[in-house]
Amino acid sequence: MAKASWNGYVKRRYFTFGEDEPMPLDSGETLGPITLAYETYGRLNEDHSNAILILHALSGDAHAAGYHSPVDKQPGWWDDCLGPGKAFDTRKYFVICSNVIGGCQGSTGPGSVNPQTGRPYGLSFPVVTIGDMVRAQSRLIDALGIEKLLAVVGGSMGGMQVLQWAASYPERVRAAIPIAATARHSPMLIAFSEVGRQAIFADPNWNGGDYYNGPRPDTGLALARMIGHITYLSEESMHQKFGRRLETGEHFGYDFEVDFAIESYLHYNGSRFTERFDANSYLYVTKSMDYFDLCNGYDNLAAAFANSSRLTYLVVSFTSDWLYPVYHSKEIVSALTAVGADVSYCHLQSSWGHDAFLLEVETMTRLLSDFLDRLVAEHAIRLPEE
Amino acid sequence: MAKASWNGYVKRRYFTFGEDEPMPLDSGETLGPITLAYETYGRLNEDHSNAILILHALSGDAHAAGYHSPVDKQPGWWDDCLGPGKAFDTRKYFVICSNVIGGCQGSTGPGSVNPQTGRPYGLSFPVVTIGDMVRAQSRLIDALGIEKLLAVVGGSMGGMQVLQWAASYPERVRAAIPIAATARHSPMLIAFSEVGRQAIFADPNWNGGDYYNGPRPDTGLALARMIGHITYLSEESMHQKFGRRLETGEHFGYDFEVDFAIESYLHYNGSRFTERFDANSYLYVTKSMDYFDLCNGYDNLAAAFANSSRLTYLVVSFTSDWLYPVYHSKEIVSALTAVGADVSYCHLQSSWGHDAFLLEVETMTRLLSDFLDRLVAEHAIRLPEE
Repeated sequence: MAKASWNGYVKRRYFTFGEDEPMPLDSGETLGPITLAYETYGRLNEDHSNAILILHALSGDAHAAGYHSPVDKQPGWWDDCLGPGKAFDTRKYFVICSNVIGGCQGSTGPGSVNPQTGRPYGLSFPVVTIGDMVRAQSRLIDALGIEKLLAVVGGSMGGMQVLQWAASYPERVRAAIPIAATARHSPMLIAFSEVGRQAIFADPNWNGGDYYNGPRPDTGLALARMIGHITYLSEESMHQKFGRRLETGEHFGYDFEVDFAIESYLHYNGSRFTERFDANSYLYVTKSMDYFDLCNGYDNLAAAFANSSRLTYLVVSFTSDWLYPVYHSKEIVSALTAVGADVSYCHLQSSWGHDAFLLEVETMTRLLSDFLDRLVAEHAIRLPEE
Repeated sequence: MAKASWNGYVKRRYFTFGEDEPMPLDSGETLGPITLAYETYGRLNEDHSNAILILHALSGDAHAAGYHSPVDKQPGWWDDCLGPGKAFDTRKYFVICSNVIGGCQGSTGPGSVNPQTGRPYGLSFPVVTIGDMVRAQSRLIDALGIEKLLAVVGGSMGGMQVLQWAASYPERVRAAIPIAATARHSPMLIAFSEVGRQAIFADPNWNGGDYYNGPRPDTGLALARMIGHITYLSEESMHQKFGRRLETGEHFGYDFEVDFAIESYLHYNGSRFTERFDANSYLYVTKSMDYFDLCNGYDNLAAAFANSSRLTYLVVSFTSDWLYPVYHSKEIVSALTAVGADVSYCHLQSSWGHDAFLLEVETMTRLLSDFLDRLVAEHAIRLPEE
């Protein structure tokens, strides 16, 4: 039983800052007050050197592992890798995960109430960047009394935040683990983001982003999610999971209802997504990804990493991930090598596509555990007493 | 001047059949009368043995080449390969192209008037298959007095029709040229079709398919087209054409207007598509592709080709086509080889993705001309007198 491996239940916590002085944003605007929803797992050691910050992907949240209550049907999104005896072993490490700003799972985002108007921000929420998300996270890390993180780790958009952490706060991170990530969003990724956003804009319920007192743009958000889901799978995994299997019976319906299992899968996931995600957040978070380019302001990627060459890196990619294909990770590895960083690179065989970073549990566990053990040894980290 | 290469202008013609006896459909329904819009290029030789049937893709039509009038800005969709001295050399061959049933460019489709009601069919139009499209085309070929086609050729959905022609009418075709095609739509292809359809369904103007007297579901159709366009390109061609280039100026807009050139390209193409395509046709034609599986009713693909093993085949695929990746073509080649067919296979290096079949003109011209010349020689076809 997964539930049994946890001592009690995980609590969502909130950290608020910027009441007096709002946080500057990359856009030139400011935002404040800012609340970050976060969760922690495990115990901080005496000198606060065993903290790992987990960064979530587009649709993720602060609830990375465990259960909030006995009625929870599913644990947090990376429970397979986070807990006692798992890759991020909570007997050894103090693990933190916070919801990004612009998100909708407890952190300040477009669905939050703007204290100046008393109404939800909607589209008056400023466009935030991956840099802004990381800047806000650094304030949480301050508040938790952690000067230097043992590691920052995340997949997909989480991996972008990992790279941003390394670039923005090299002195506050020992190791960075970007998984299935990129140093700059490609035109194909931007294209998929944009059609997702257009699906939301096209929903009449979206109403210019002002829908919090009326019906929600669930159709548009579900469609955006369906498009996304196609890109998270691989051809191979779709063949394995669905093939051309018909959802009902042996014959085509010869109408426009669902015929194929793959259609049913997309509908189900699109619809479920609307229960937990806010359409405006989908706009803001995808935009932050599109804007992400670590080279911005630098001649090239190596120059962007020049100040973070003393970190230890583990870069991970997957063979069937066509959304963030291997060249993205190779570009990162090559730039890190050019500045003399200590970088390990694993291109893992997997048929799961982009989703592999959540699904290849056994391989990831071995890889992450070994890498973290090595860090502990190299930096003589004293783990918490049992 | 491309226009100068044509003697005069091309005429769209119409062929109507099934007034008395409607055509049976794979669904068990019937359809009639049926009109096919078609165009022809070049001259039929004395024994009617030099005819090539070109089959169009999802968004194509009967206008494969040349100009209809002096005000036309662009020639037909395969003008690069069709005309005097081109791959389908109109000095040698009589080339036919017709709009598929279910389409919206002159052939009977959901936007046509149902003679029984006097109103557009809308969603009362029966769901048609690739098999139905080909069955209707065979009636046109009858009417043109052609017993046996020298070749059937087409890319993408056109290639599916090519394979269907070979399977349904092996005695009426000498050679089949499926390009960037598949013998069965994959789950990924079905998934992309379905999100395109959902984009149309979600447009309030779609109105259950009954919109011909009101505003059209342009937003939904444009979104479906934008999604499609992403899949027709390749990562490499997107980098080459757009990269992360900003559409306006040097700075991000920090809003939800267009920032990147790739976004602008998608918007432009989505919007232009609504000027020439009918949303209901998009539903019907994508559904016909999803249903396409040459193995239906057979134990395997080789069995499906058993009766068409005496045709000559040229199968073409492209390295960067991730929508119809190479395994689709290899599957076809392997099945054809198993039944002892004469099959040539070319996997062409190209960075243009699925669109390569329209863009790799030089290579395609050489390949197609040589293949057709060989057919002419082998079958002692007497070309029309100059």
